[in-house]
Amino acid sequence: MIHSGFDKLFYPKSIAVIGASSKKGTLSWELINNLVRYGYNGKIFPINPKAEVIHCFKVYKSVTEIKDDIDLAIVMVSKNYVLSAIDDCYMKKINSVVLITAGFKETGEDGASLEKQLMKKIEKYKIRLIGPNCMGLINTRSDVNMNAVFVKGTPVKGGIGFISQSGALGAAVLATLEKNDIGFSQFISIGNKADITENEILNYWKDNNDVKVITLYLESFADPRKFLEISKEVSKTKPVITIKAARTASGQKAASSHTGALAGAEAIVNTVFEQAGVIRMDTVEDMFDLAKAFDRTVIPEGKRLGILTNAGGPAILTVDEADKWGLDIPVLKTNTVKKLKEIAPEEASLNNPVDLLPPATAEIYGKATEIMLEDENIDVLIIILGPPLMLDTLEIARAISNATKKSPKPSIIVLMSQDENIAKLSQIDPSHPPIFSRAESAARCFGLMYKYATSRIKKDKMVYEPKVNKNKVKKILNDLPKGNYYLDFIDIYEILKNYDLPVITSYLAKNAQESVIIAEKMGYPIVIKAIAKDLIHKTDAGGVVVDIKNTEELVNAENKVLSKLREKELDKNFEGFLIQPYMKGGIETIFGVTKDRGAGHLIMFGLGGIFVEVLKDVSFRILPIEYDDASQMVKSIKGYKILEGIRGNPPVDFDCIIENMLKLSKLVSDFPEILEIDFNPFIVSNDRNKFKILDARIKVRL
Amino acid sequence: MIHSGFDKLFYPKSIAVIGASSKKGTLSWELINNLVRYGYNGKIFPINPKAEVIHCFKVYKSVTEIKDDIDLAIVMVSKNYVLSAIDDCYMKKINSVVLITAGFKETGEDGASLEKQLMKKIEKYKIRLIGPNCMGLINTRSDVNMNAVFVKGTPVKGGIGFISQSGALGAAVLATLEKNDIGFSQFISIGNKADITENEILNYWKDNNDVKVITLYLESFADPRKFLEISKEVSKTKPVITIKAARTASGQKAASSHTGALAGAEAIVNTVFEQAGVIRMDTVEDMFDLAKAFDRTVIPEGKRLGILTNAGGPAILTVDEADKWGLDIPVLKTNTVKKLKEIAPEEASLNNPVDLLPPATAEIYGKATEIMLEDENIDVLIIILGPPLMLDTLEIARAISNATKKSPKPSIIVLMSQDENIAKLSQIDPSHPPIFSRAESAARCFGLMYKYATSRIKKDKMVYEPKVNKNKVKKILNDLPKGNYYLDFIDIYEILKNYDLPVITSYLAKNAQESVIIAEKMGYPIVIKAIAKDLIHKTDAGGVVVDIKNTEELVNAENKVLSKLREKELDKNFEGFLIQPYMKGGIETIFGVTKDRGAGHLIMFGLGGIFVEVLKDVSFRILPIEYDDASQMVKSIKGYKILEGIRGNPPVDFDCIIENMLKLSKLVSDFPEILEIDFNPFIVSNDRNKFKILDARIKVRL
Repeated sequence: MIHSGFDKLFYPKSIAVIGASSKKGTLSWELINNLVRYGYNGKIFPINPKAEVIHCFKVYKSVTEIKDDIDLAIVMVSKNYVLSAIDDCYMKKINSVVLITAGFKETGEDGASLEKQLMKKIEKYKIRLIGPNCMGLINTRSDVNMNAVFVKGTPVKGGIGFISQSGALGAAVLATLEKNDIGFSQFISIGNKADITENEILNYWKDNNDVKVITLYLESFADPRKFLEISKEVSKTKPVITIKAARTASGQKAASSHTGALAGAEAIVNTVFEQAGVIRMDTVEDMFDLAKAFDRTVIPEGKRLGILTNAGGPAILTVDEADKWGLDIPVLKTNTVKKLKEIAPEEASLNNPVDLLPPATAEIYGKATEIMLEDENIDVLIIILGPPLMLDTLEIARAISNATKKSPKPSIIVLMSQDENIAKLSQIDPSHPPIFSRAESAARCFGLMYKYATSRIKKDKMVYEPKVNKNKVKKILNDLPKGNYYLDFIDIYEILKNYDLPVITSYLAKNAQESVIIAEKMGYPIVIKAIAKDLIHKTDAGGVVVDIKNTEELVNAENKVLSKLREKELDKNFEGFLIQPYMKGGIETIFGVTKDRGAGHLIMFGLGGIFVEVLKDVSFRILPIEYDDASQMVKSIKGYKILEGIRGNPPVDFDCIIENMLKLSKLVSDFPEILEIDFNPFIVSNDRNKFKILDARIKVRL
Repeated sequence: MIHSGFDKLFYPKSIAVIGASSKKGTLSWELINNLVRYGYNGKIFPINPKAEVIHCFKVYKSVTEIKDDIDLAIVMVSKNYVLSAIDDCYMKKINSVVLITAGFKETGEDGASLEKQLMKKIEKYKIRLIGPNCMGLINTRSDVNMNAVFVKGTPVKGGIGFISQSGALGAAVLATLEKNDIGFSQFISIGNKADITENEILNYWKDNNDVKVITLYLESFADPRKFLEISKEVSKTKPVITIKAARTASGQKAASSHTGALAGAEAIVNTVFEQAGVIRMDTVEDMFDLAKAFDRTVIPEGKRLGILTNAGGPAILTVDEADKWGLDIPVLKTNTVKKLKEIAPEEASLNNPVDLLPPATAEIYGKATEIMLEDENIDVLIIILGPPLMLDTLEIARAISNATKKSPKPSIIVLMSQDENIAKLSQIDPSHPPIFSRAESAARCFGLMYKYATSRIKKDKMVYEPKVNKNKVKKILNDLPKGNYYLDFIDIYEILKNYDLPVITSYLAKNAQESVIIAEKMGYPIVIKAIAKDLIHKTDAGGVVVDIKNTEELVNAENKVLSKLREKELDKNFEGFLIQPYMKGGIETIFGVTKDRGAGHLIMFGLGGIFVEVLKDVSFRILPIEYDDASQMVKSIKGYKILEGIRGNPPVDFDCIIENMLKLSKLVSDFPEILEIDFNPFIVSNDRNKFKILDARIKVRL
């Protein structure tokens, strides 16, 4: 067993409990009690300056008194003694500390200041610390057997790792492990995560074979960008399932099509999870049902669900749920039905779902399970056992469990309205498949597992390398004044041209005469846009006129715009009119970039017009992105059908959309000083030559 | 106690069990055992030609032998003896029969034919029958105490009525009543519902004071229209909560904007529930959590949720869920915080959610509950109790329960990870508020309860009586040939005019010359539409040209259309061109009517164009509708914001939309021979004079 990093935390050979109390019922007494009762395989050293014996253990006045090496210190002294306890750890050369004591940042200013002092100390001492304000950690591996928490509940052994940001929620989960047959390998309550965060634990568990499935309860990200990077890697080899609580208020209500305004906190959280391949669940029950399924069975190779039941109603609800999660309910092979007929009662329904009716015995249930798992049309099986009348449920459940083991395919057993039998079956048959109490949840889990399986399949990676002229853009930005502002269109135009982004032909006309000359050269119809410093929302201000057909209309339009600007006192810095050809046809999209304090640069894609304004139908990814990311973004919007071509229209050039997104991604990677970009509208078409950015804004911090 | 209708079913003074077995473990033995053990308050007469004694009861060879009156016969003989058992019932003048025996319609053709014979008999005998293929019924009222089912579980007393179409699912629910503290007043398993259906039971429970909340598990509607009518009435006085299983496959995938194609089976089910005020739930757990909440507490008068907890994480998840269901989390009054400060530990968080921290005792919890319920900013309270370390949960829960009774406001207690305490608390404190195991579910229930409360508030009913000329339309339809077909536009035009529906001015020109004359009189720009029998999809066939600006364009357009029709061989029955003014501006909507076999006529409203084609953004109601129905329909579509006015546009004339929907409703009520109507597009605007139906189809069966 070779682990790196946090081995002394999770696999300690000796633990000092600093602040151990000899009083039964105190947190520290309970923690030591849990360690002893669970059969910890290392040495325990209670530290208390006043006690002699705690729980049969000799008590030391200080860790420094101990001769043996100490791998892990669990600090539970009251908050005023925490700093000196850390000093002691340093003296004793202890590098790993779990600080359970509360009263730090979570309580206000004074606590926050204490936490700062603590952090200074551990940085100086090179100590790694879990907490403060946490409830401990668990490793169920038989040669470790460390149950170092102070709450009730006997950890069931299994392959689930759980990181909880809430101690109380962690406690509530631990209290249900046995009842719900949820098997943990490791658990850690990370509290205020002042030093060690979920990101480091995730990274540590990546190559830890004891942890097969990772679950998290988070209220905040320590660093969303790091979480994305790490969990994206981890989720390639093991599923990562998360609850992210503390959703922010429903957010954006304004009809804004501005990328920054659309990238609300919840949108960023969902983007991080989606991009990382992390499965987000809403409730603790649902998260651990899914974790249990991943832990106790194999990942499905297909999405064809078989259902075996003794109760019609629950099977129908399972079909409904399976449909919702994208599973198929296949017809059984003729031979399967024939074999079932030989064992099932006459009235049984032998189509999928197969209903054996309430009197079905253990023998019939076991055989039917085997027969269904042998069917080539079935990839996964849910076996529902409603409370039978006069039969021994446990005997039936055991027969089912044994039968499932004869097949390599995944199964879930559902014991309806008989929760007490879940723990019983898991005890008499330790190598059982997942046992659920809710059939719908079983269907949902298979749906999510199959989705996870397909997301892991490696496709031929499409690669597109945009041809860009980085140096020219560098020069443009270098020549600009320092500050935080929107670029002039002339600069934007040059930047986009150099990154091969198809901005529409545009000329700046400084006066009416120039306008007429440019327009005639360009050919009517044209569009004019007033250009002035601080005139960001040109259309709203009446600064844009479209579909100008001749010189007369042009002159009238310019006069009208100018008088409007004068009226609104927006004409002070008027520089002239941008003249562009007027385009018809194509589909309006928007491309955008915004920078979030935590997550960094995000790219956005959506359909323009009412789709973004009314339906907020946009998708995000954190930059940089690759071909597949962009492709998923485009396909995930609700209005994707419009891009595929409706009303007999040809589909748009999908590749060309992706390529432009990758150009935009490269632009922002090359110049992180860009804070915001909006192309709105960006006209896309079936003809890549007709792709045109009609309007663009770029904000920079130089 | 005065009940009508099914009193002999639910409140029988004597029961004959026909087909009673003396063998322990048989269904009939178990049923009699349940009756006896639950303390049935009437007389039981087992019928069996061969036995002497069953369960201490004298056995009769036939019901006809009994001298006493028999209110209810429960028939459990094997299927071959069912018909003669019914004959016996008739001889004994028994009007109410519960037929438990299976093997009827559910098993195929032979069974269906037996069911038909059965139905003939009971109609002749005027017997009312529950079943066949059911599992019995329950009435927990203390002076009845009838537990007439053959499955395990002791019914807990309460105010919930439950109708189950699945016996097995009913059994699974009964098995969890005690554990989950779900209190039933009446339960009925309706099986094949050959005679008595959910509709009749619903209607019976409407005025039955023992039933406070109604729950249903349905796989199919006996009659969706009747269900709508009855449940709409019932839900005004008591909540009706339903699971409708057996959803049909995800349905419509085609980009059709035709009302008939959009009105899929699931859309109709949802329309029925919404229109009736019935609350649809997805899982049994969720349904009974909600029913329990309605049963054990009062309906909220506001949506401001207070949360009291000893665990931060679960409270945060509750806030997330509350937000999802439209509840507010208000700030507490200063005085409340002051009072809480006096009793809570120093580190406690005294903002809403109030976190008392794990060491909170029964005394603190009880007082805090009282203080929060006294706060004027709080309408409803959720009290979360995470598993405490060294304290007696039951004692705390009891203190909370007592405290909640001092306030008229509704509360829910959540006992996290301690399911075993739910039943215990309910026993030691029978008048407790609802006790949940999932905090999120408590928030959802309050959200749904508040929604139910507001939906019951009587508004000043808006009334609009369309002015129509029914007789003229009657004459038009009378003069048409018999059959099943689409009307000609000329007839449609007249019908709409007579119902004051603003169809666009249209003239039929039989040749090019007439076209030119009409067009010039009308004024350009115009639209032409080719008219021919069987040419339903004019636009797809290239039969429509818009924005024709002058005579030259008109002549060219007509020639082009004609040659296209010729190409497609659609010109056989060509009648001429419809000439209409070309309209710009306004918003495209669609109005439609379709007729469903079960639900009857439905009306549809939606935004036109991509909204209907891509997003299927439409709403339905079953006809006839009133002002409020129409108003809800319009407001419920996703694109409603567009009608309210985006991009600085004025809002459309909302009343005028409603009025036109009511005209359409009246047209169909007056002429039910109409099978389908589509107005697509129907242009709406802020100016009611600009409302125009640009195209209309009507299909009739004459």
